[in-house]
Amino acid sequence: MSPPSASPDAPPSNLGTIGVVAKDAAVTGTTKAGGSEPLTLQAIRARREKEGKLVAPTASYSDSDMFKSPANLSKPKARKWDHLFSEESASRQPCMLKQAARHLKKPGMISLGGGIPSPENFPIEELSMKVPKPPHFNRNPAVEEILENEEISVGKYDVSERGAIFDLSIALNYGQSIGAAQLLRWVTEHTELVYNPPYADWRCSLTIGSTGALEAALRMLCDRARNDSLLTEEYAFATALETAAPLGIRLFGVAMDGEGLRADSLDEILSNWDVAARGGARKPTVLYTVPSGQNPTGATMGEQRRRDVYEVCCKHDVFILEDEPYYFLQMPDYKGKASNGASTANGHTELSEDATAEAFLKTLIPTLLSMDRDGRVLRMDSFSKVVVPGSRVGWITATEQVIERYIRHAECASQGPAGISQLLLYKLVDETWGHAGYLRWLMSLRDGYARRRDTLLGACEDYLPRDVVSWVPPKAGMFLWLAIDHTKHPDFARGKNKSILDIEQDLFDACIEQGVLACRGSWFRAETDKDPSGLFFRVTFAAAAPNDVRTAIERFGAAVRKTFAL
Amino acid sequence: MSPPSASPDAPPSNLGTIGVVAKDAAVTGTTKAGGSEPLTLQAIRARREKEGKLVAPTASYSDSDMFKSPANLSKPKARKWDHLFSEESASRQPCMLKQAARHLKKPGMISLGGGIPSPENFPIEELSMKVPKPPHFNRNPAVEEILENEEISVGKYDVSERGAIFDLSIALNYGQSIGAAQLLRWVTEHTELVYNPPYADWRCSLTIGSTGALEAALRMLCDRARNDSLLTEEYAFATALETAAPLGIRLFGVAMDGEGLRADSLDEILSNWDVAARGGARKPTVLYTVPSGQNPTGATMGEQRRRDVYEVCCKHDVFILEDEPYYFLQMPDYKGKASNGASTANGHTELSEDATAEAFLKTLIPTLLSMDRDGRVLRMDSFSKVVVPGSRVGWITATEQVIERYIRHAECASQGPAGISQLLLYKLVDETWGHAGYLRWLMSLRDGYARRRDTLLGACEDYLPRDVVSWVPPKAGMFLWLAIDHTKHPDFARGKNKSILDIEQDLFDACIEQGVLACRGSWFRAETDKDPSGLFFRVTFAAAAPNDVRTAIERFGAAVRKTFAL
Repeated sequence: MSPPSASPDAPPSNLGTIGVVAKDAAVTGTTKAGGSEPLTLQAIRARREKEGKLVAPTASYSDSDMFKSPANLSKPKARKWDHLFSEESASRQPCMLKQAARHLKKPGMISLGGGIPSPENFPIEELSMKVPKPPHFNRNPAVEEILENEEISVGKYDVSERGAIFDLSIALNYGQSIGAAQLLRWVTEHTELVYNPPYADWRCSLTIGSTGALEAALRMLCDRARNDSLLTEEYAFATALETAAPLGIRLFGVAMDGEGLRADSLDEILSNWDVAARGGARKPTVLYTVPSGQNPTGATMGEQRRRDVYEVCCKHDVFILEDEPYYFLQMPDYKGKASNGASTANGHTELSEDATAEAFLKTLIPTLLSMDRDGRVLRMDSFSKVVVPGSRVGWITATEQVIERYIRHAECASQGPAGISQLLLYKLVDETWGHAGYLRWLMSLRDGYARRRDTLLGACEDYLPRDVVSWVPPKAGMFLWLAIDHTKHPDFARGKNKSILDIEQDLFDACIEQGVLACRGSWFRAETDKDPSGLFFRVTFAAAAPNDVRTAIERFGAAVRKTFAL
Repeated sequence: MSPPSASPDAPPSNLGTIGVVAKDAAVTGTTKAGGSEPLTLQAIRARREKEGKLVAPTASYSDSDMFKSPANLSKPKARKWDHLFSEESASRQPCMLKQAARHLKKPGMISLGGGIPSPENFPIEELSMKVPKPPHFNRNPAVEEILENEEISVGKYDVSERGAIFDLSIALNYGQSIGAAQLLRWVTEHTELVYNPPYADWRCSLTIGSTGALEAALRMLCDRARNDSLLTEEYAFATALETAAPLGIRLFGVAMDGEGLRADSLDEILSNWDVAARGGARKPTVLYTVPSGQNPTGATMGEQRRRDVYEVCCKHDVFILEDEPYYFLQMPDYKGKASNGASTANGHTELSEDATAEAFLKTLIPTLLSMDRDGRVLRMDSFSKVVVPGSRVGWITATEQVIERYIRHAECASQGPAGISQLLLYKLVDETWGHAGYLRWLMSLRDGYARRRDTLLGACEDYLPRDVVSWVPPKAGMFLWLAIDHTKHPDFARGKNKSILDIEQDLFDACIEQGVLACRGSWFRAETDKDPSGLFFRVTFAAAAPNDVRTAIERFGAAVRKTFAL
């Protein structure tokens, strides 16, 4: 196990060494035993049982290698990415004060080093929360099921007084930017269980959410002084675009179809890159993509599409930022309005908890991370869309080298997510639900989103003029992308060639007049200096109540009919 | 009141408009009535009473102008800082999706815009915490006082079901980067109560802690491409130095004395700036300083020193980053070991709660913000040292222009602090303690730190060789700076002129051997390429238990004696 280390702005203190109270000394730590079998829920339990209780005091150093299964050791190592790091990232030095913390391992050492407050000064003695218990998560109003809530409490000194693993005295104090060992363990196990990266030296770090993780990644991998540019979907997540632009990173859009970003377009752009024609922008070395339920188009890449995109990135040595907030909101295919509700049913009731959860995992499209033999993917996961946005906690997975640079960055930018959030998430997803219960929660959430999607699609079938408006039923996420045939606009027919942006503005205004707010497609263009490729609106089924969704789509239909004089 | 606006990555949704349920319509909002009297606790209560209940649904837009007293309107406006913003900061655009959210004000509007999850999907139904009640905060073991804890609970739908102001359905969802209106109100009132900035258009924004706020401020105000540099104390907070360096910002140290940064040294450096002699660095336009209980020296600037520093900054048009985590840990003067305990007593027991709290405020040295007629100060406050570090919540105060640029930055970097932390802090400092109770808490905390300081200083008097080691008793904060006279080292006496860094290393090694970890002064040098001006060690009285502190200082003394052959 590695030495403990103090928190960034609160250097060495009386910090204990992270470790495990081993029941079987021979298996403490990572060993060379074990095959290359994918990790199972049972194997996680067995490993924890063998390793004994996790001991991780205030601001303990930890990393994913402490929590990965031995099978990872037999995988090949990832490539190195020194040639990509920006001047800023490459020049970051480890913290001097943290290096000194290694001396705290010496028995009897007293620290006058770190300005870490004493927990006696924390005015929260106990925290409790009421949370639902698995497997009673199903909120389908059609299903009469009693929801059971459980009350979970955590005190200030539960670790020393009650043999607990995590408590307020630790969570309310400074921590490491990588996150608390207690939650990092869960995240590492979950990552291996679901994605199983195919190289040896992958690691995770907690983040303050994917907004912050993306900003850090862009500053690490792109450099204004190098004229670096970023590839992304032709229509892309607006905040990502707004994050990149002020950093002087030029944005270029890749053509899309119903499965999102097209591998052939990506290859074409990279194969024919002309620096002069691109205004001096260097051939892109980074791709930012949202493969599942893409924002704004709702498109989901199938497995083959992901493999094709990955191969093109290998061919051109492009690093991939895989942003997957909606990954677990992969829904069954939409069966049409007639079979409303069919999307949400879920077999598996005869299976054990483990088998149910593991069967769910098999329904998920493999991730770019799971195909990543080179270690060229930095994957962003988030609790925002699947637990709560207000925790501001997510995590990234990448090579040890990339994670190390990320942590040096986070030490000076955020110091990692709030300890309060980490503690509540740990109590919920680890101690209360466990991995199987969490997967059950995701299944229930997916069912809820599928019901919402079906309501929206049913309303679209009922209220939208199909000769002007078309759509691909989303297979994941929260968004539906409505394509509007601008050539059907009367001005277009009269040869006036009214611009797409003008028609979009007219339709938006008509929507507001009718009482529905939807997002204009042009707001999501990666290249704002180019004409839009079509006329689109983004609508979401995440927020509004089902009845409101139907009314809103009815209004949208009326706005289209008015704008297009139908 | 301004229109509501959706969260950064979760554009327009069904968001309500922030406002107040006014009991007296004539006084809703800021009016021109009111004089220029400083704000009092009673005036805050009266204003809240008049304005009625704060209504601020999910991701509501809010700003400090909604919560400032009318007296601010009669102050002059701040200067503008366009000439300081970096290319990155100046180029940030407001979010298109947020601008669209203004349409949500229209009655009956249904939003299909924002990808904001529905709170029915949040698996936390209720949160509770046990917290101490004012005024029973005193933890002096010598005082037999019964501590009373109160249990506070908050449910998911307390706003709609119980007439509450803040609940889990809001706090667990996306929010604005500036923070939740509920906590922003408290922070704005507290800022006016304690600092009362002397210009009209000051505002606050919540932050993810001062680490993140400083990073953002440096990226906003310094630009690698301009060869920008940063002035700071000769010995400065290591994380601040590590934040600036990778951004290509050159660091220059200002000489210090027992009151910290010297105004005359600052003026001398700025008056005689020679770009060529400074390696091409532009004359500094930004000063970073920790005026109270400075890290690492523990020095506290007196009022006159602060005024002098402010005037020098005006003379040279330097912007000030005032980082004040230890501001409220201003302790009574140390009276010497003989009167141990005297520092911690606190009169005022005959006064009312309000008078006690307001008397405490009068004991505090005025801040740079309170002298800031130009609006050239960005002040950083933090809950880390006075409530809990694990909330990752602080706030900044600056001009409306600077705060606007900060929020554009935060929208793409953090999305503001965790809603869970904001909710717990609001329940604690606003609903449970109120402003007066919070000030009582700060007084109690200050007393606790004074006791810890006195223990440390007593041990220093007992165990350190006074002819080699000297110190200034700190008046604030967590740190003591031990100056060690390197000329007393035997090698120095023998004419060997052993370097300060070598002696420092020897002493550090001797400390480790003796079993005490302290921080080497050279780790905090602003200019690492210059020889240190002296030999120093930083020790803290924040963390270790009193008995351990005495043992640790005894060991430090033994290490000095050994190293100096005393």
